[in-house]
Amino acid sequence: MVNILHRVGIKSSSLNDAHKALTTREGLSAWWTNDTQGEGEVVGRVLKFRFGAGGIDMKVLELDPAKRVLWQVVDGPEEWIGTKVNFDLKQEGDWTIILFKHQGWKEPVEFMHHCSTKWAVVLLSLKSLLETGKGAPAPNDIKLDSWE
Amino acid sequence: MVNILHRVGIKSSSLNDAHKALTTREGLSAWWTNDTQGEGEVVGRVLKFRFGAGGIDMKVLELDPAKRVLWQVVDGPEEWIGTKVNFDLKQEGDWTIILFKHQGWKEPVEFMHHCSTKWAVVLLSLKSLLETGKGAPAPNDIKLDSWE
Repeated sequence: MVNILHRVGIKSSSLNDAHKALTTREGLSAWWTNDTQGEGEVVGRVLKFRFGAGGIDMKVLELDPAKRVLWQVVDGPEEWIGTKVNFDLKQEGDWTIILFKHQGWKEPVEFMHHCSTKWAVVLLSLKSLLETGKGAPAPNDIKLDSWE
Repeated sequence: MVNILHRVGIKSSSLNDAHKALTTREGLSAWWTNDTQGEGEVVGRVLKFRFGAGGIDMKVLELDPAKRVLWQVVDGPEEWIGTKVNFDLKQEGDWTIILFKHQGWKEPVEFMHHCSTKWAVVLLSLKSLLETGKGAPAPNDIKLDSWE
């Protein structure tokens, strides 16, 4: 099993604001994809992220306000099914830190390389949303290659 | 051992231009850090990347024009020493694809999470340089947290 890891700091934000951006439909649609459906504020419910051609469904596995959000992929690209997406939050001085892990990839395939960079792109959008009020969710995200 | 993986596509570029950006001092200083010294076009030589507070020295291990660039870290942050940084290049239709791997991390420490996101930031700068003629090398890069 291999994992995608990231860490972003958000200046002058709060743990609550970060948690809200990771759990509410309004928040999620302002940094990941405009087309976000479902419910992220209740354990057991499913969030539906759509991107033109395809989509990803995530079941909410754990919620620890201002501390942790854990999802499991229940539908989407074959390589993603069953993997988990984890956000750990903490405050360090003036910075809200998000430690990110997309865990449980079977193999480090080329698509995993792509997804690693793409997660950085969307986490930078989340950082921008929380720092400036404006993210760059799909379809206005940076396109990395012909796979998008 | 754990690895940082990324994949970026560069539209309407060429393998030669990408190789040049990864091997010449002029190229490297236009996307990673303004303060790039040393020599990247000869196997066995050392490149010196500097970032205000610290720096990283990379020995050139392999060069395969328009195909591969491989460095080994010989000085820099403790966790980086001995690790390898690999760029594989290939053409896919209108896109030049860079497959990136920073391999040989002993443990998935928090600093590795940071470096994973930071590599994405500098690879996006490389993409921008090759697509538009303008990168965002340090000190004009996106700062991720208080560690920079």
